Amino acid sequence: MKICCRKLTLIVTCSLLVLQIAAQDSLRVFPTHWWVGMKNRNLQLIFYNNHKDLAVDKLVVQSGNTAIKIKKVNKVSNRHYLVVDVEIAAGAQPAKYEISFGGIIRSEWNHVFYELKPRSKQNGKTRIKGINSSDLIYLIMPDRFSNGDAGNDRIAGLRDQSLDRSDFFKRHGGDLKGIQNHLDYLQQLGVTTLWLNPVLLNDMPDRTEHGYAFTDHYTIDPRLGGATAYHELIDSLHKRGMKIIQDAVYNHVGIEHFLFRDMPDSSWFHWWPVYTNTTYKDQVLMDPYASQSDKKRMSDGWFTQTMPDVNQGNAFFANFLIQHAIWCTEEFGLDGWRIDTYAYNDLDFMNRCNQALLNEYPQLHMFGETWVHGIPNQSFFTRNKYNIPYKSNLPGVTDFQLNLYGIVPALTQAFGWTEGVNRLYLTATNDFVYTDATKNVIFLDNHDMSRFFSMVGEDVAKQKMGLAWLLTFRGIPQLYYGTEILMKGFSDPDGKVRLDFPGGWTGDGANKFEPGGRTPAENEVYNYVRTLANYRKTASALKTGKMMQFVPEDGVYVYFRYNNQQTVLCVMNTNDGEKEIDMHRFSERIKNFTRARSVIDGSELDITGNIKVPGKTVWVGELR
Amino acid sequence: MKICCRKLTLIVTCSLLVLQIAAQDSLRVFPTHWWVGMKNRNLQLIFYNNHKDLAVDKLVVQSGNTAIKIKKVNKVSNRHYLVVDVEIAAGAQPAKYEISFGGIIRSEWNHVFYELKPRSKQNGKTRIKGINSSDLIYLIMPDRFSNGDAGNDRIAGLRDQSLDRSDFFKRHGGDLKGIQNHLDYLQQLGVTTLWLNPVLLNDMPDRTEHGYAFTDHYTIDPRLGGATAYHELIDSLHKRGMKIIQDAVYNHVGIEHFLFRDMPDSSWFHWWPVYTNTTYKDQVLMDPYASQSDKKRMSDGWFTQTMPDVNQGNAFFANFLIQHAIWCTEEFGLDGWRIDTYAYNDLDFMNRCNQALLNEYPQLHMFGETWVHGIPNQSFFTRNKYNIPYKSNLPGVTDFQLNLYGIVPALTQAFGWTEGVNRLYLTATNDFVYTDATKNVIFLDNHDMSRFFSMVGEDVAKQKMGLAWLLTFRGIPQLYYGTEILMKGFSDPDGKVRLDFPGGWTGDGANKFEPGGRTPAENEVYNYVRTLANYRKTASALKTGKMMQFVPEDGVYVYFRYNNQQTVLCVMNTNDGEKEIDMHRFSERIKNFTRARSVIDGSELDITGNIKVPGKTVWVGELR
Repeated sequence: MKICCRKLTLIVTCSLLVLQIAAQDSLRVFPTHWWVGMKNRNLQLIFYNNHKDLAVDKLVVQSGNTAIKIKKVNKVSNRHYLVVDVEIAAGAQPAKYEISFGGIIRSEWNHVFYELKPRSKQNGKTRIKGINSSDLIYLIMPDRFSNGDAGNDRIAGLRDQSLDRSDFFKRHGGDLKGIQNHLDYLQQLGVTTLWLNPVLLNDMPDRTEHGYAFTDHYTIDPRLGGATAYHELIDSLHKRGMKIIQDAVYNHVGIEHFLFRDMPDSSWFHWWPVYTNTTYKDQVLMDPYASQSDKKRMSDGWFTQTMPDVNQGNAFFANFLIQHAIWCTEEFGLDGWRIDTYAYNDLDFMNRCNQALLNEYPQLHMFGETWVHGIPNQSFFTRNKYNIPYKSNLPGVTDFQLNLYGIVPALTQAFGWTEGVNRLYLTATNDFVYTDATKNVIFLDNHDMSRFFSMVGEDVAKQKMGLAWLLTFRGIPQLYYGTEILMKGFSDPDGKVRLDFPGGWTGDGANKFEPGGRTPAENEVYNYVRTLANYRKTASALKTGKMMQFVPEDGVYVYFRYNNQQTVLCVMNTNDGEKEIDMHRFSERIKNFTRARSVIDGSELDITGNIKVPGKTVWVGELR
Repeated sequence: MKICCRKLTLIVTCSLLVLQIAAQDSLRVFPTHWWVGMKNRNLQLIFYNNHKDLAVDKLVVQSGNTAIKIKKVNKVSNRHYLVVDVEIAAGAQPAKYEISFGGIIRSEWNHVFYELKPRSKQNGKTRIKGINSSDLIYLIMPDRFSNGDAGNDRIAGLRDQSLDRSDFFKRHGGDLKGIQNHLDYLQQLGVTTLWLNPVLLNDMPDRTEHGYAFTDHYTIDPRLGGATAYHELIDSLHKRGMKIIQDAVYNHVGIEHFLFRDMPDSSWFHWWPVYTNTTYKDQVLMDPYASQSDKKRMSDGWFTQTMPDVNQGNAFFANFLIQHAIWCTEEFGLDGWRIDTYAYNDLDFMNRCNQALLNEYPQLHMFGETWVHGIPNQSFFTRNKYNIPYKSNLPGVTDFQLNLYGIVPALTQAFGWTEGVNRLYLTATNDFVYTDATKNVIFLDNHDMSRFFSMVGEDVAKQKMGLAWLLTFRGIPQLYYGTEILMKGFSDPDGKVRLDFPGGWTGDGANKFEPGGRTPAENEVYNYVRTLANYRKTASALKTGKMMQFVPEDGVYVYFRYNNQQTVLCVMNTNDGEKEIDMHRFSERIKNFTRARSVIDGSELDITGNIKVPGKTVWVGELR
């Protein structure tokens, strides 16, 4: 997209008022450009100039071409903005098309050359593959993984100039180039997909490391390398057959966002007589007995004092967010979206937004953050089996239930009727409420939670158990950066779980990207993940097979992944000591197989009678 | 029904074989009688003689009348049985109709005079009112409440002759007459409905006090007073406008049941190569990943070694059970059924059985015991909002979730994000999964669980809190006998929660049916229940009103019951100390009301600003 304002010689048609807009380059338009050949040919353009009156009296907006048809011109209270509905012609060709607008004095009109691009392809096909349970997602906080370009660590003019690796609330300098530099490491580990914490500009005064406080939707944070580095990273990923997930935040923006600082009108945000925080109580949204006031506090309360709550009921802001999501998907070739604070959004808006994306990209995966407590709660926010008025169309969720009430108690609680590994099993039995639970993302930890290694008491055996579960269970596995090298830390404060990946910075004491930089235990775990994740790449039973699970007995949980071609046996022995297990109970799945070969070390077990499984082990083997 | 076998002079028609049945009075038929005017005019009669061959070769079964048409004669392996499908004519009149059957020698035929009765009425209408949330159910273990007839304490010929009140596993002598003697006490307390632990004959050698091991479906236990006492009790209840719930056990029978000891054929029960207990794991029934073997162990495993598991897939046994349920409903005028061990039954059978009852009695209430862990689990067994292949038609369940994960943690756990009273609130928010949660039965304790007073540390204030919750929350409240007089005991073993009601036996040291026999604390709690339960009888908001609840804050949980006529405020302060509460937060429900009058003591609160509620209190007041 290219924007300029120049003097023109068109005839004054409508008004005698004098335009007060000076010709200069601060005019912006969102989306910054668009594409021909989209299914939805309607587009809503927002023009913005932060110190000029665009919404003059007797305004005229004109398109001097047939490719872009002006449908409607909308004004908002703040005359720095103009909202213009256009329609892209069905046969429009890629080009820059002029849109001009102004009042009486034609010589002071704004002229925009709005670009319609051809849609990008890779080898003649869409670059966007989507994400499914065949993938292994690796979650990275870009500021904390690796510094590939020391030149962008501080960017002049941005508010946060805090660069200081000794403070986990300051910026550390990690960037997209740093990630790109380690794609070999990740691909060898077995990762297929990256999910990066948000990459959009957070021009906030502090705590910018997390990225969830956008201040400009159409700018990739220059400290991460900007759009160029993001394009390069994604192109590299796609060339390797790898994929990318972007982190969406629809619920709020950073308080320094221009849409808040110079807001189009007050209805774009939720306001309260005194500052009111969200209650973080998702349950009011499904509670048949909830009060409207509790619902309003939940949905319209601010997530924090520095992140104003977006009014997604404002049609202009809603369109802005939806178009931005489509724009990013098309512009960068995104394979999936993780959606932040899903429950806090206007859920009708979310359905509209999701549907708009799915209309353009049916293969796209989207999963919402659902840090909630309870299967009914979590499943409410995704496609489910409930006959209820609100039906979510979200394909998947971050499966917090299988974490908080699943793998964590499985490895940290004593075995009981509903405790220990029974808790994990019980949570999985409730999958009947989901339309497709395999679209949920399962994980041991993430950027908000205590590191799994700390949760299991820094027990390497338990870490491997968790990882074996992650890579064999139903759903899409997601690894948090550094879990494979035993990074640790409790989440209070969250900075402690966002430490730098050792070796990501020049001069780091140890380089844990390399075997020589890792301790024996770290290599043991790294190699364990690599073996299992690379096996998984070849194992259709693990990638897309069905699951069968058996009632845990005596602290031992047995489940199978299987299809017509392959059967994988997983025996999770949560006891400290070895257990002997009579395999006859599993004959329904073992069928005519007689042996199981360990995926880890190739050793074989005779499964026609009893097997012995060591304590604190998930034994994973393919039946033969 | 009257049965006799006599020599007849009918012509031999079919066979030359000689009948080996001697003429005597041991022939029985089930159901023992039936009614004209039932919607379903098909009936399956089971004839049984425990030492004669009924299923002779060239058998003929005849009805010498047009009221009962013989449709089909079915034999089973055990020739002591004959299963005869009949159809009652649409216009059949009440009378005893002859059915005769036998082989060649007509002089040795069996002749039964099967009675079709008129359906009972009360003031020209059905006696069967059904149970709903306007009711207050009182659960009684008949052996442990009151001994009204010392003459039936031991019955000669029955296996259990253990009468010994000093042992809580022996019989104590309580009976139906004892209950009838205390209907004034119960009605004054505010009870509208009795649920009795099973009253059918348990001719077992020991542990007969609980009643769940039927040995003859068509005999009311004579130690309770038999059918006569049962009729008298129910007639007394109905005359008072009170109601009765019977306890159904479809899943199993006592091992001494004649259907097991002299079984029609082996397919009437579930068999295992070695004794196999049920796993008690309800979740396999809904788990999309469950194995068939785990499902089979759950459903077909025996509940205990002395209670054989019924094969409800056997059509004859299924019909026997369904017809027995209808028979009891019509015979005694039952208002509801509590269904034991619901999850352990064949769920398709249960739907058939429930539907058959509802076809005849749409007003009948039925609720299943669901001692399970999880909202999805519990709701799976009743009418729910799930689009899943198995759709339960059961109107309600015993709401264990609101007990185990509701009122118990609310009063025994510290307040936390998902703990304490938040746990109760959270459980209620998940009601959206039920078709109608008001049909669920809520309770503080029952005959299997630790007494609530013991669970809350014998804290009288907490006992009153629990009772206030019970009588104001959504659903049908159920009180366990003696909870109103602070009976206590932990459920290990269960005998400890099945102690005698003091005063129920002549010569008891204290008579807690009378104020003078109760301690001050017992009177305080008794009076509290009486006040609230009798207020409830008049309070449409509590009986059938809607509920609105607010997110608990600082250990205080506020909910309202309301309709167009009435609004009742309930403030549960789970803290030890007084709390001051700003009522503006509840303006959505308070509307123009300015005062609230305590239901307990008539004191009034100004609710236009802050109110103070003492610690460990549920303040219940009607808005004015």
